[in-house]
Amino acid sequence: MHKDNKKVYAAILIIGNEILSGRTKDQNTSDISIWLNSNGVKVQEVRIIPDIEKTIVANINKLRKLYDYVFTTGGIGPTHDDITAQSVSKAFKKKYCYHKEAYKILEDYYKKGEFSEGRKKMAMMPANANLIYNPSSGAPGFYVKNVFCLPGIPTIMKSMLPFLKDKIFGGKEILSKTISVETVESEIAKELTKTQNKFKHIEIGSYPFFRSGKIGVSIVVRSENQKEIEKCSKEIIDFMVKKSIKLVERD
Amino acid sequence: MHKDNKKVYAAILIIGNEILSGRTKDQNTSDISIWLNSNGVKVQEVRIIPDIEKTIVANINKLRKLYDYVFTTGGIGPTHDDITAQSVSKAFKKKYCYHKEAYKILEDYYKKGEFSEGRKKMAMMPANANLIYNPSSGAPGFYVKNVFCLPGIPTIMKSMLPFLKDKIFGGKEILSKTISVETVESEIAKELTKTQNKFKHIEIGSYPFFRSGKIGVSIVVRSENQKEIEKCSKEIIDFMVKKSIKLVERD
Repeated sequence: MHKDNKKVYAAILIIGNEILSGRTKDQNTSDISIWLNSNGVKVQEVRIIPDIEKTIVANINKLRKLYDYVFTTGGIGPTHDDITAQSVSKAFKKKYCYHKEAYKILEDYYKKGEFSEGRKKMAMMPANANLIYNPSSGAPGFYVKNVFCLPGIPTIMKSMLPFLKDKIFGGKEILSKTISVETVESEIAKELTKTQNKFKHIEIGSYPFFRSGKIGVSIVVRSENQKEIEKCSKEIIDFMVKKSIKLVERD
Repeated sequence: MHKDNKKVYAAILIIGNEILSGRTKDQNTSDISIWLNSNGVKVQEVRIIPDIEKTIVANINKLRKLYDYVFTTGGIGPTHDDITAQSVSKAFKKKYCYHKEAYKILEDYYKKGEFSEGRKKMAMMPANANLIYNPSSGAPGFYVKNVFCLPGIPTIMKSMLPFLKDKIFGGKEILSKTISVETVESEIAKELTKTQNKFKHIEIGSYPFFRSGKIGVSIVVRSENQKEIEKCSKEIIDFMVKKSIKLVERD
């Protein structure tokens, strides 16, 4: 849902020692950011923190006050190192207890005799939390006020995002246009600075790339205003043509 | 370099709108974390922030007081959106000016007539910054006290890390052992909790995986003490054997 003319910001809190140790590469930031962007919400900060209760509590309480939405990933599984639900309970000073509906979902999901203690733990949540439907693996996520808690496994996490569409109220969608050119950044830096100074309300990003033996730069023009994007892009493209810099396909 | 019996912690600060927008996936956290780990330094927090000067300054000043080392990536290139060097100057209340040695390196690196304004910008740094050698693309990184500034492009960033080896003083190297098994987390959650409670100084992480049609769990046992890792791992493996859970190769 989009509310016009309002900037809406979110933070992502990635919870998990496996990301901090470098063992696992975070994939969730990108998926959540792109999804939020398409809903008019701009991710303004990401933090990756360890599985330590007081650290999780402190970060949740900090971020939920700073931003319109907070998305957490990780730590809602069945094992001892999954402590997000109990930490969110503490952050909101709510009881950490069985959620009836979540318990029922999990009970139905598993075969008789297979609803073990570990699996029951996944129904433990802050009292009166709202559930987030999980079409992939049963165990629901949950949200309390503006804090949305999702699992860490990327495929499962991603499958749950669409079910939050009517819970997120974004501003105007942030649009972008990418212009990729065969050059190096330092050849176009001066001109890009000029263009950025002229289009103050547009965000112009410059990102070098090296791929299949080719080097180049992708210039990303971002704004909520399509017309402004077109005007700014035209100026950039005109400059490239003037300088005989080749435009290339990318993204 | 390793100092025994001391815990040494670092934070990583990823600077760049392109990561926050989801356009580019962060690869640097993993590379820096693994490298720091092998030098006895544990990454305790990662933050991803936009190219906004006051945000960069505030985060640098916060993190450099909280942790032994801070590594930043991104924002040291030639374009208008590269503002890390000027932000670090502000954070340390140092002049932002040409660094003689960096200027010389860049001047030598580029052909005559190609040392453009944009390229010169890459020699602008906090006054008296120390350089970090760049074997890939000329332009050096730099550090001021405990804040190390590296480029955002993963291949270039990674090539510079070895040149910091004698600048980082770590504690004991954090060792780890991974046990991968064909099961689901909830089948082993209870026993893992017991083992974790018994080995309080060991970090046991449990990470489900789905790969080439197989599902399983990787249990990662982390500690500075190899003997403790072996003892703890033996207990976990014994339990798996007892429960007829198959051990598999992974990583």
